[in-house]
Amino acid sequence: MAEEVILLDYWSSMFGMRTRIALEEKGVKYEYREEDLSNKSPLLLEMNPIHMKIPVLIHKGKPICESIIQVQYIDEVWPDANPILPSDPYQRAQARFWSDYIDKKTAGPCKALQRETGEKQETAKMEFMEVLKTLDSELGDKSFFGGNVFGLVDIAFIGFYSWFRTYEVVANFSIVAEFPKLIAWAERCLKRESVAKVLPDSDKVLKSVSDYRKNILGIN
Amino acid sequence: MAEEVILLDYWSSMFGMRTRIALEEKGVKYEYREEDLSNKSPLLLEMNPIHMKIPVLIHKGKPICESIIQVQYIDEVWPDANPILPSDPYQRAQARFWSDYIDKKTAGPCKALQRETGEKQETAKMEFMEVLKTLDSELGDKSFFGGNVFGLVDIAFIGFYSWFRTYEVVANFSIVAEFPKLIAWAERCLKRESVAKVLPDSDKVLKSVSDYRKNILGIN
Repeated sequence: MAEEVILLDYWSSMFGMRTRIALEEKGVKYEYREEDLSNKSPLLLEMNPIHMKIPVLIHKGKPICESIIQVQYIDEVWPDANPILPSDPYQRAQARFWSDYIDKKTAGPCKALQRETGEKQETAKMEFMEVLKTLDSELGDKSFFGGNVFGLVDIAFIGFYSWFRTYEVVANFSIVAEFPKLIAWAERCLKRESVAKVLPDSDKVLKSVSDYRKNILGIN
Repeated sequence: MAEEVILLDYWSSMFGMRTRIALEEKGVKYEYREEDLSNKSPLLLEMNPIHMKIPVLIHKGKPICESIIQVQYIDEVWPDANPILPSDPYQRAQARFWSDYIDKKTAGPCKALQRETGEKQETAKMEFMEVLKTLDSELGDKSFFGGNVFGLVDIAFIGFYSWFRTYEVVANFSIVAEFPKLIAWAERCLKRESVAKVLPDSDKVLKSVSDYRKNILGIN
């Protein structure tokens, strides 16, 4: 009970996926609790009063918020299996830089791709393509963002892959054709049990977003 | 030469102040290079091609970008003197959470306080007061954000203190009267040699911002 790990999350959150993948990588058993985002639980509001957002990791009754911080926490508390951050300080700084880049640059465009139409969606599309171009170039010919080993930046970005099809369909553009290296990287990540277990089916994400656009936003 | 540490920075940047304080805390000798932000150096653009922003820390010829990442890097490379992050993983996660909170919540309002007038500035004022209220409550009766020891969150926020007078004057409100605990905390921080050495004079910041508003933006 004292070692209890609980995750408050929502199935299609690419941020929650990071924490789930990290827990799987470490072989940590945890209780998954799906939140209703339109009616957040009292526990979520109590555990993350500042941002009131999922994912919230609760370990021994204490909350850890923000997915990249959770992943680093998991790596520090369970250091033995599959290190997530490199041991070299410079490589660690680089991993943190690119995770931070992903957080800073995707939030705006990904929200707009999902919720907007017309010009706003077009702008978001261009911004998102720019992010993909930068990440494609950073990946280069490496197997993973950190080199030969799956790590923090891979965990930070792989969840977005399960949304690519949704972005492509709702905003009518092609990611797959433009970035074959990123797609090959995603397929390499998916060979890991942790990623395969956590990533939802792309069609399920698409259906939920299509339903949301149609029923809540009243757009197609 | 191989151990050379260079910092590309701008004197009134509260982000650059973080890195300078961390270097002072560790007793690391470094070469400070002031950037002209309206005409950035080729070295800055080469070392931070993604964000093209100061501060950039260059260690052994390699760049580390983003101030909170730089502070963590400095703590990891020079671990002996004055630890900046706590050793306990949960406390480390909390320190990262609050540093991240400061970065997420101050960027918008602080830019608007400095550059806007009227309604936009009023909104920024309310948002900034909300941040201060949250930080005041998180500080509570502790000496520093992490407890008894000066650390990451103190380093993340103390630079803003040198801007308080500027915000008060250009946006016509009072911070000092509303948050005595935060002011007492800032004064405690200023007793540290690192902070006292790095923080610029509040009147100098105010003059530079007043000049910028008058000469560049054409507002008072």
